[in-house]
Amino acid sequence: MIVAMQEKATEEQIDAVISAMDEAGVDVHRTTGEFQTILAAVGATASLDLAKFEMLPGVLHVHRISSPYKLAGRAWRPEGTVIDFRNGAKIGGQKVAIIAGPCAIETREQIFAVAECVKKAGGQFLRGGAYKPRSSPYSFQGLGIPGLELMREAADANGLAVVSEVMEIAQIEPMLPHVDCFQVGARNMQNFNLLRELGQVRKPILLKRGIAATVEELLLSSEYILSGGNYEVILCERGIRTYETSTRNTMDIAAIPVIKKLSHLPVVGDPSHGTGRRDMVPAMAKAAVAAGADALIIEIHPNADKAVSDAAQTLFLDQFEKLVGELRVLAEAVGRSL
Amino acid sequence: MIVAMQEKATEEQIDAVISAMDEAGVDVHRTTGEFQTILAAVGATASLDLAKFEMLPGVLHVHRISSPYKLAGRAWRPEGTVIDFRNGAKIGGQKVAIIAGPCAIETREQIFAVAECVKKAGGQFLRGGAYKPRSSPYSFQGLGIPGLELMREAADANGLAVVSEVMEIAQIEPMLPHVDCFQVGARNMQNFNLLRELGQVRKPILLKRGIAATVEELLLSSEYILSGGNYEVILCERGIRTYETSTRNTMDIAAIPVIKKLSHLPVVGDPSHGTGRRDMVPAMAKAAVAAGADALIIEIHPNADKAVSDAAQTLFLDQFEKLVGELRVLAEAVGRSL
Amino acid sequence: MIVAMQEKATEEQIDAVISAMDEAGVDVHRTTGEFQTILAAVGATASLDLAKFEMLPGVLHVHRISSPYKLAGRAWRPEGTVIDFRNGAKIGGQKVAIIAGPCAIETREQIFAVAECVKKAGGQFLRGGAYKPRSSPYSFQGLGIPGLELMREAADANGLAVVSEVMEIAQIEPMLPHVDCFQVGARNMQNFNLLRELGQVRKPILLKRGIAATVEELLLSSEYILSGGNYEVILCERGIRTYETSTRNTMDIAAIPVIKKLSHLPVVGDPSHGTGRRDMVPAMAKAAVAAGADALIIEIHPNADKAVSDAAQTLFLDQFEKLVGELRVLAEAVGRSL
Amino acid sequence: MIVAMQEKATEEQIDAVISAMDEAGVDVHRTTGEFQTILAAVGATASLDLAKFEMLPGVLHVHRISSPYKLAGRAWRPEGTVIDFRNGAKIGGQKVAIIAGPCAIETREQIFAVAECVKKAGGQFLRGGAYKPRSSPYSFQGLGIPGLELMREAADANGLAVVSEVMEIAQIEPMLPHVDCFQVGARNMQNFNLLRELGQVRKPILLKRGIAATVEELLLSSEYILSGGNYEVILCERGIRTYETSTRNTMDIAAIPVIKKLSHLPVVGDPSHGTGRRDMVPAMAKAAVAAGADALIIEIHPNADKAVSDAAQTLFLDQFEKLVGELRVLAEAVGRSL
Repeated sequence: MIVAMQEKATEEQIDAVISAMDEAGVDVHRTTGEFQTILAAVGATASLDLAKFEMLPGVLHVHRISSPYKLAGRAWRPEGTVIDFRNGAKIGGQKVAIIAGPCAIETREQIFAVAECVKKAGGQFLRGGAYKPRSSPYSFQGLGIPGLELMREAADANGLAVVSEVMEIAQIEPMLPHVDCFQVGARNMQNFNLLRELGQVRKPILLKRGIAATVEELLLSSEYILSGGNYEVILCERGIRTYETSTRNTMDIAAIPVIKKLSHLPVVGDPSHGTGRRDMVPAMAKAAVAAGADALIIEIHPNADKAVSDAAQTLFLDQFEKLVGELRVLAEAVGRSL
Repeated sequence: MIVAMQEKATEEQIDAVISAMDEAGVDVHRTTGEFQTILAAVGATASLDLAKFEMLPGVLHVHRISSPYKLAGRAWRPEGTVIDFRNGAKIGGQKVAIIAGPCAIETREQIFAVAECVKKAGGQFLRGGAYKPRSSPYSFQGLGIPGLELMREAADANGLAVVSEVMEIAQIEPMLPHVDCFQVGARNMQNFNLLRELGQVRKPILLKRGIAATVEELLLSSEYILSGGNYEVILCERGIRTYETSTRNTMDIAAIPVIKKLSHLPVVGDPSHGTGRRDMVPAMAKAAVAAGADALIIEIHPNADKAVSDAAQTLFLDQFEKLVGELRVLAEAVGRSL
Repeated sequence: MIVAMQEKATEEQIDAVISAMDEAGVDVHRTTGEFQTILAAVGATASLDLAKFEMLPGVLHVHRISSPYKLAGRAWRPEGTVIDFRNGAKIGGQKVAIIAGPCAIETREQIFAVAECVKKAGGQFLRGGAYKPRSSPYSFQGLGIPGLELMREAADANGLAVVSEVMEIAQIEPMLPHVDCFQVGARNMQNFNLLRELGQVRKPILLKRGIAATVEELLLSSEYILSGGNYEVILCERGIRTYETSTRNTMDIAAIPVIKKLSHLPVVGDPSHGTGRRDMVPAMAKAAVAAGADALIIEIHPNADKAVSDAAQTLFLDQFEKLVGELRVLAEAVGRSL
Repeated sequence: MIVAMQEKATEEQIDAVISAMDEAGVDVHRTTGEFQTILAAVGATASLDLAKFEMLPGVLHVHRISSPYKLAGRAWRPEGTVIDFRNGAKIGGQKVAIIAGPCAIETREQIFAVAECVKKAGGQFLRGGAYKPRSSPYSFQGLGIPGLELMREAADANGLAVVSEVMEIAQIEPMLPHVDCFQVGARNMQNFNLLRELGQVRKPILLKRGIAATVEELLLSSEYILSGGNYEVILCERGIRTYETSTRNTMDIAAIPVIKKLSHLPVVGDPSHGTGRRDMVPAMAKAAVAAGADALIIEIHPNADKAVSDAAQTLFLDQFEKLVGELRVLAEAVGRSL
């Protein structure tokens, strides 16, 4: 932490800041310039509340100079994290993984049709929601555990791993036998109680970026899971909210290479939520792979127009198969494979 | 709902859209212009998923023409909602209410000192957090129910009503005997399961706007509580995330008169979270009242610099008393009283 | 400037950064912590390009620790700047000034009717556009100098000062005899050539914040005018672009007290452009004054619905008179007068 | 245009709106629903000011149902526009074009070194700024026409076309003999006077998206040039301002396929300004091509660290050559070539 004093700060003010830094348990190095005094805190500064120092009289600015996250930082595992799944799939290595499925599990027919399509296209992961809290209390709310049982069966029949969203701590336990990877949705990215519990789980977590979260906040949230001892975290870029309305969200493709530089964790691109428009999913899926994504998560449905939720952003199965074929060529052009 | 067809849409495409609208159970009125055909849906359109129609071939745009909320709309109760509390305070009428307290309940001394100060200044509500999930797992996590018991005691001793944040469904039941108003935080504004449960409670709910939520989304979230039969909802503007960094959030003061026009529900301004800076709280508290806020919620602490959380935005007690004095004069200048 | 090195930075990398700082002509103070080395630049750092240092190998972050502006800074004139106009009006002192008029000067009748209304209501400034580059090439483009002559006449007849927007360097000279204050619009906030020329003028400049500009960028733009020797700059908050669509822009009311703290320059609030909605202008005008604005700039028109531009945000004359009456009471409640 | 009346709108209010629509010269079709009346305007609605109708009593919402642009619309030239340059290069066809060069033309050596590098790598366009209005009045301001003469010479020696930014109307004439394509910078995207003049020029215009502009606003600005008779407009995505700070701007990659769908005009991606970080340029250049960009514009410099402006986002020549090699492979993987 660096505290930059105002040009006219008095010696008393400077001393008061030094005392506050002492009290916080850090060593202080003072640089007295012609115009301005700078106080550098050295030591265990990660947990300091910078804003406290910013309010002290005579202080101009306070800067954090070390990353507020440790376990998620690239330095912690420079070679990058690769996560293994029991069906043999990996996320984080040379291969780009494909995760696909409907927004919500609806029927046995639906989920089996999707699973077969994912397998045929060469994907490794089946996704589908069992709990769907909706903006209207009268909408479909998801099949719950019976839905997960159907998805498990469909996935096993096709050699796929299962990804599904967990929305509350109480769902972790019942979901455990059925999923290979818990997804945390954008709205729960800062549900710290939930993240802490998932830190105790020994299955991978796919953590989605919040709609108004910075990359740094996403990494801080992952730290919550990592610090519990669960080192298998996958980060997901799924679009942020901006003033632009031609797409539902603005997919921040640059977040993918930025995260790859800052962190050792794998990164997934979600072009379905990233755009909210079926016709933009293929272009943005390609952009994500070109920018370095380790996996894609794509919403598909045998009858996409009739999907009970997210219909407008869901691909038909044949559109998905065509897209995966194109991605296979693209992945090779950027030194990866599918 | 209005479906505007593209200029070159074919009759087949138009017929397909009409069929889809029929299927959705609405009446269709067709306007055939020189260049463009327009299809208007009349009837129960509130629950329609517009995006589904937007993806149909030949469609240019789909517009919602009726408000997606009903119970929260101004038309439902044109005279405005006034919420009564058992200590005699009201939120929503001619008087501007003052809600104040620490971010977190810390000690008996702290909460009693605050309660006495709120009473002395002329405030009616004591707020304080009992559950504090923090970004670091090693930070203070709140006193829980024992904290609420302390706050209840301090409030009762000073004739104040109690407001405290509920973060999970499981907390509702134990909190019920201790609070007069449940606060829902910005991160939970779209936690629909929680909102639905709070629709069953018969105590007022103070619902904070999410950091990236529109005014319309805030009203839709309130609809969730209202539709459960709990008509006592108070909305709160507490700042949104923008590119500007000189304040922690950008307090959208215009949201206050916009909500007053669209809805009958009372509106609270939160200048503490709205700015994140103690030195900006007084100016923005005044701006909120000038713009028509029915109440203010302000973070205060006997030793604000040492508050365990949100220190930088917390007023000292004397600053708060001075501010309330100034607000009293201001409120009268806009035809209200404190 | 502070350069924070990465934890694993080598001595060679540190030496290279020190050399680069030397080359840039600043003194370097080195702090070697247990984990991290910090290099502080002392001296003439205002003109340094921080990004250059950020790209050097081994560098984690670079922070600016002194304000990049000097003449606009509060420290330069702690008592605040007050700007005098030849009609006796002031902007920046105890009184809140009122600037009002139509978006565009249209006819003699229109501008005289407005001028009389402004005088009657107690305002001191008449504003109106003579050059109106419009988004459509077929729209009304403004009356030019003849329009300014009309406005000058109407202003003089009513003891008002004239404010009008300058859009290009070539307009400065012909406008000079007719205006008392040049307005620079939001789109020109970073038109540095224009700002530089206005630094040579000896009339006040009303500089509007760009739609995507930070407060710091606004202050930097003002520095451009100030450094030319024109110390009479008035800053204007007129709304920024965010994801919220219920108002045309999001008026950043907090920018008013933030600027008052950072700078000695007067601040004007523009509730017309700030909201884009006539029905929200009164509430936001009051919020601006409550938050400390030194003046308001408001669009008014005798027949607001037929105004050739900005009709939706323009007040009718009687609405304006009523509002000024309410503002007079409000100003006194915050220790000012109108 | 569709005017949706409020549920409680009176017949008088409805009649008043119909009159206002009549006055505006459009035909009105009325749909009277059980709850709500809808008025559809048919005819020449493109130039209507919707906000005027929105303020009428009893009106709920007004929606534009036809695109406000015509000449820029995809329907106007469904096969897409291809722009030919006299050096044989094209922008808009099957090949992805490469435009590269320094932010500012500095010396003969510099611009010749860059031109040779661009040719060697297989690029077709040399870019460089001759006018550099800078945020500080003491910074380098560009070489002006002598700089353009140098660039022209360097380009001709290497078979390249020249792209350079025009900042004011007065620069068009002197620049004409030296450039093959005028660039309009982000800050001038809504400088309508400049755009109108460029509509009279018979050389291609590369129009950059403003930092806070929507895709629709970009298309509207292009309409200004097109309506002057200059049909050779190239649009450029160069990043928008959001709350995220890990990159200087957020490059809205989805804007590329969105524009390709809405318009027939070619689209260029600018990963240099889009990210502001040299280390992110390659990933985002690839993302832009994968998403369908017709060209890339990239800042390069023989000694990128010492570039007089934009140093942090400028590639070294060897980095550029390596990137173009990678892009060549990528372009083929998406059915294009370089």
